[in-house]
Amino acid sequence: MHQLDELLQSHPVVRQARGRPAKELQDCIDACFSCVQACKLCADACLSEEMVASLVRCIRLNLDAADICLATGSAVTRLTQPSNRVLAAQLGACATACAVCAEECERHARHHEHCAICAEECRVCEAACRRLLDAGPARH
Amino acid sequence: MHQLDELLQSHPVVRQARGRPAKELQDCIDACFSCVQACKLCADACLSEEMVASLVRCIRLNLDAADICLATGSAVTRLTQPSNRVLAAQLGACATACAVCAEECERHARHHEHCAICAEECRVCEAACRRLLDAGPARH
Amino acid sequence: MHQLDELLQSHPVVRQARGRPAKELQDCIDACFSCVQACKLCADACLSEEMVASLVRCIRLNLDAADICLATGSAVTRLTQPSNRVLAAQLGACATACAVCAEECERHARHHEHCAICAEECRVCEAACRRLLDAGPARH
Amino acid sequence: MHQLDELLQSHPVVRQARGRPAKELQDCIDACFSCVQACKLCADACLSEEMVASLVRCIRLNLDAADICLATGSAVTRLTQPSNRVLAAQLGACATACAVCAEECERHARHHEHCAICAEECRVCEAACRRLLDAGPARH
Repeated sequence: MHQLDELLQSHPVVRQARGRPAKELQDCIDACFSCVQACKLCADACLSEEMVASLVRCIRLNLDAADICLATGSAVTRLTQPSNRVLAAQLGACATACAVCAEECERHARHHEHCAICAEECRVCEAACRRLLDAGPARH
Repeated sequence: MHQLDELLQSHPVVRQARGRPAKELQDCIDACFSCVQACKLCADACLSEEMVASLVRCIRLNLDAADICLATGSAVTRLTQPSNRVLAAQLGACATACAVCAEECERHARHHEHCAICAEECRVCEAACRRLLDAGPARH
Repeated sequence: MHQLDELLQSHPVVRQARGRPAKELQDCIDACFSCVQACKLCADACLSEEMVASLVRCIRLNLDAADICLATGSAVTRLTQPSNRVLAAQLGACATACAVCAEECERHARHHEHCAICAEECRVCEAACRRLLDAGPARH
Repeated sequence: MHQLDELLQSHPVVRQARGRPAKELQDCIDACFSCVQACKLCADACLSEEMVASLVRCIRLNLDAADICLATGSAVTRLTQPSNRVLAAQLGACATACAVCAEECERHARHHEHCAICAEECRVCEAACRRLLDAGPARH
């Protein structure tokens, strides 16, 4: 989003740490919400393709990834008294959902530009979730 | 929901299997969406308590659990060409989110009836996710 | 959900009014979340039908109604310092989304039981939104 | 999101119109999802403020706006066989939710930078919804 950095810097938890929001955190929030949009758009674009019947699995995995990225992006956005256990489990599930969706989208990437772009967004989100997981999700 | 059983039975995937939707699946869908509502209501009830400052962590974990249960309930509701990897990872994350939210709600259960009820719903959902995980999430 | 009545009664806003939660409010929360599930299930069942190409508009309107019912159900669930303007506008939009989805589902009801059930749920939700709108959404 | 323009251009509905996605549509999708994030972050930042008790209404309206912007952004993202009635009603409700949330955030803007930024995002989203409403939501 437009002013994510400024918003995070104005958060009491970040202000009190007198630091800057972790790069891994910003990237993960950004990637999750970007992936929500890409997956929703790709699902709908598939639905409008003539060969929709061959894209049914792609639509299904797009909807899974969109829902899961939204839950993950929302959870990591909350800096107030986080639970490391919850965030770690959800980031892991999100990386899996993005990887599986990317694999399916990549199979259609040559024929459908929206699948190619969506696969890219999923890979970016998968990597961002893994990096935040490695950095420790509940440390700002 | 009111007619969940009938709806599941009318789904092509269930009809073609000439079976009935798995008990574990129905219970999990039901528990996830029930938990979404309980957590949203508990978060808002906490926000209206005079001692809101002491319930901040409870609100936060309620919002996490609501978002995560919604993503999980939505994903397990989709019977079309599921990915076992995605569903298993998300069910595991959901069980964790429910367990952590229940622990926090249980700490406030004596003072706040909404926390007592929400803790119960979270425990039911945690158990339902684990049972579906054991049964194999993508087998109807 | 299972214990919606008890949860609402434990909410500070309802407790302080020494009353019971309005029937219209309970029915609307219940109908909205039930409709979320019905629309998600119908969308996925359509996606699994052989004649998916003829159900594309139904899937699209199901997804609209699911998203809009979720936002509406979540907003009316929050009893803390509500805005009548926001709730009224959203309830009106939800009634419209349910009506339009029901119209489409009714067209497929003879061929697809899931469309018949979903149409019913949408009509129940449309009516519940209109009743809460008439009762005044922000009066408990 | 990063590649919204490219994704929209690859959508069959836009491709078949041999045109470009309407500026009003892109702006509205962008503004809705940006507002979802701003409202979620502002709600959580308020929850971490020492004076949380004075920000309860702000948190509540942030959550309403986040949910409603998500439903709206998701609905306008779907270009497949849209219903003008549904989109128009939801865009109107979203403009109202953003306006009411902005009014509340503006009251706290001098003391809380996150409220100032969130108010801005809400105003941008309100305007974008109204412009798409004027342009005709279901014309690409």
